[in-house]
Amino acid sequence: MTFTSLVVSVALCGIAGPARAGADNPAQPAPTQPVVRLAELRIDPSQLELYRAALREEIEASIRLEPGVLTLYAVSVKGDPAQVRIFEVYADAAAYESHLQTSHFKKYKTGTRGMVKSLVLVETDPIVLGAKAK
Amino acid sequence: MTFTSLVVSVALCGIAGPARAGADNPAQPAPTQPVVRLAELRIDPSQLELYRAALREEIEASIRLEPGVLTLYAVSVKGDPAQVRIFEVYADAAAYESHLQTSHFKKYKTGTRGMVKSLVLVETDPIVLGAKAK
Repeated sequence: MTFTSLVVSVALCGIAGPARAGADNPAQPAPTQPVVRLAELRIDPSQLELYRAALREEIEASIRLEPGVLTLYAVSVKGDPAQVRIFEVYADAAAYESHLQTSHFKKYKTGTRGMVKSLVLVETDPIVLGAKAK
Repeated sequence: MTFTSLVVSVALCGIAGPARAGADNPAQPAPTQPVVRLAELRIDPSQLELYRAALREEIEASIRLEPGVLTLYAVSVKGDPAQVRIFEVYADAAAYESHLQTSHFKKYKTGTRGMVKSLVLVETDPIVLGAKAK
């Protein structure tokens, strides 16, 4: 599945409202739903560059190696770089569960344990995921 | 510029660290930098469906009509749908300024004024913007 096609399909889901395809026809399976969430982290300022390097390595490996990891947008708050936000989109729940078992994710998680002062995972429901198709 | 090429170029910026291309060669202009930010909104629950419809319309028009609007990912917090988060990526500052002047943005802004109870704009610096290239 291309990134473009996911975005378009999710956008159409958004337009159609919260009803699931298949709701009127139990014989038709519901389509898989993307998992979209926002991670809010506070990093130890004295280890910020190490953390950023580990995060970059983890994101690049995830995007390159895992078909179901669609988006990992990591940013820091302007003027307060120890505050990190990651916007995450996985193709479905299975892709997310698979991601947690990869060696690159485990390496990141273990390697940054002492750098992350707090972590809040905000689970979300997409309204519309709009992105350039070309 | 395709969405893919932007993501790759930003990812490479991220790997290279904060130094700007051109720093070693003053004759070479610095590349434009994307504007990336996170909007955190609280919506009047009694007007939530109206707000979501206005937001969808605005995002779809922005992505379709504005070359410099690259990503507008709108989600609601699971279990608390009046809490909305929008992850925004513009090609550069000029694209963002231009966006503010469009009729669809002005319509959204005016039309939803009475629905938005609070709005926090979190300006950010990209660390790495990872997304599927295909």
